[in-house]
Amino acid sequence: MKIFDRPGFPNPARIRIVLAEKGLEPQVEFVSVDLIAAEHKQPAFLEKNPSGVLPVLQLDDGTYIAEATAITEYLDNLDGDPKLTGKTPKEKALIHMMQKRAETELLDAVGDYFHYATPGLGAALQVFKSPEWAGRRDWGNRQRDRALGGMKYFDTVSRSHPYVAGDAFSMADITVFAGLMFADAAGIAVPEDYSALTAWRAKVSELPSVKNRSGQTFVTEDLRRLGF
Amino acid sequence: MKIFDRPGFPNPARIRIVLAEKGLEPQVEFVSVDLIAAEHKQPAFLEKNPSGVLPVLQLDDGTYIAEATAITEYLDNLDGDPKLTGKTPKEKALIHMMQKRAETELLDAVGDYFHYATPGLGAALQVFKSPEWAGRRDWGNRQRDRALGGMKYFDTVSRSHPYVAGDAFSMADITVFAGLMFADAAGIAVPEDYSALTAWRAKVSELPSVKNRSGQTFVTEDLRRLGF
Ligand SMILES: N[C@@H](CCC(=O)N[C@@H](CS)C(=O)NCC(=O)O)C(=O)O
Ligand SMILES: N[C@@H](CCC(=O)N[C@@H](CS)C(=O)NCC(=O)O)C(=O)O
Repeated sequence: MKIFDRPGFPNPARIRIVLAEKGLEPQVEFVSVDLIAAEHKQPAFLEKNPSGVLPVLQLDDGTYIAEATAITEYLDNLDGDPKLTGKTPKEKALIHMMQKRAETELLDAVGDYFHYATPGLGAALQVFKSPEWAGRRDWGNRQRDRALGGMKYFDTVSRSHPYVAGDAFSMADITVFAGLMFADAAGIAVPEDYSALTAWRAKVSELPSVKNRSGQTFVTEDLRRLGF
Repeated sequence: MKIFDRPGFPNPARIRIVLAEKGLEPQVEFVSVDLIAAEHKQPAFLEKNPSGVLPVLQLDDGTYIAEATAITEYLDNLDGDPKLTGKTPKEKALIHMMQKRAETELLDAVGDYFHYATPGLGAALQVFKSPEWAGRRDWGNRQRDRALGGMKYFDTVSRSHPYVAGDAFSMADITVFAGLMFADAAGIAVPEDYSALTAWRAKVSELPSVKNRSGQTFVTEDLRRLGF
């Protein structure tokens, strides 16, 4: 398998954590795509994923799989033991519900704030983020507010459940974790009184699939180059 | 099981089609929620789904499952024969990828156009659609353009595949079908030269799970009351 991604970015990090959880890293060849140069908006990459975002998995038969949820379904089911996406119908349902909320209300909201209301990854990529649209900054700021609402929601969830979709670590936790990583990079602080969310985050940071990988899973080098 | 929905709306229709495909309708008690009166934005409903949207499934143990993908995962896996969400890792991955694209690039884009750039479902609900936001109509119109891009993409897909995620009818087809239903209601016509998409739609309309249910699955009575 090949994975087209960029170490240090949040959606790629979701899959890095999945690979570590499933012990699959040795089977993957990673291909780095230069987001800052907008390589992912050029025809060669758009043929792999017309949405123009990372990560993308390429199977050995050549098939491209985009979307972190879809890639996670693939990797998690390879060994017939889907611990991250659920085994029973109810587990699958709760995990998919919570992961969708985590994308919509947190991770994607932070991303939209970052790309539309801030200089984002810089000039080469801004050309692809609707520079002609007068309302872009206003909309981006609304998405920041949405992300703060998402943090509040997941703080409440963390008060009554050990993990986002219940008793076990799952794809939904990974999405929330990536959302908070991205929020750090984008300068959206978790409000101090969201103590349950902060405690949940500290716990997840200690998981072996997360802890030993900070160089790969946290938004780092590319953003430091840009002065974050 | 109970399902909180509203016959005639596109996201509820997704689940009605799933229930018909799986032969599960006799096991479900339907509870109608009045979207036009904004019943889904009141505390009693927000306790069931804090996102304030339909449909919501309630399991016999009381658990609420929101998000059509999550509900579909539940219902499709109940009999151990997940024909709509995929059996192999690759099938699951392709179906989840395509269904996510169908939501983002078509169904949800149409919904945002409808609720933000048109009077939508009327005065009671508009109060919950950011009336204070000056850029709302502008943003809604951008989402209409996005939906047209989605139609183009799915037209291309239909040229080379019998169904959206490959050879078999799946959750991804249901999402695209619901997106086109909603586009009809919102007044976004499928461009005439998207003949492969139109042919795919005609084929799906003839499936027993879709065909015999037009009263329930097409946007009808509520919108007619509003003059659509
Ligand atoms: N829904 C996608 C989101 C992927 C995504 O937004 N990836 C980011 C990297 S963290 C990206 O490629 N951003 C580039 C851009 O927005 O131009 C998924 O789940 O994979
Ligand atoms: N992502 C949700 C979308 C649900 C949705 O938007 N439902 C519509 C009915 S078709 C709704 O409740 N709209 C009410 C509103 O937007 O206020 C899902 O998959 O279930």
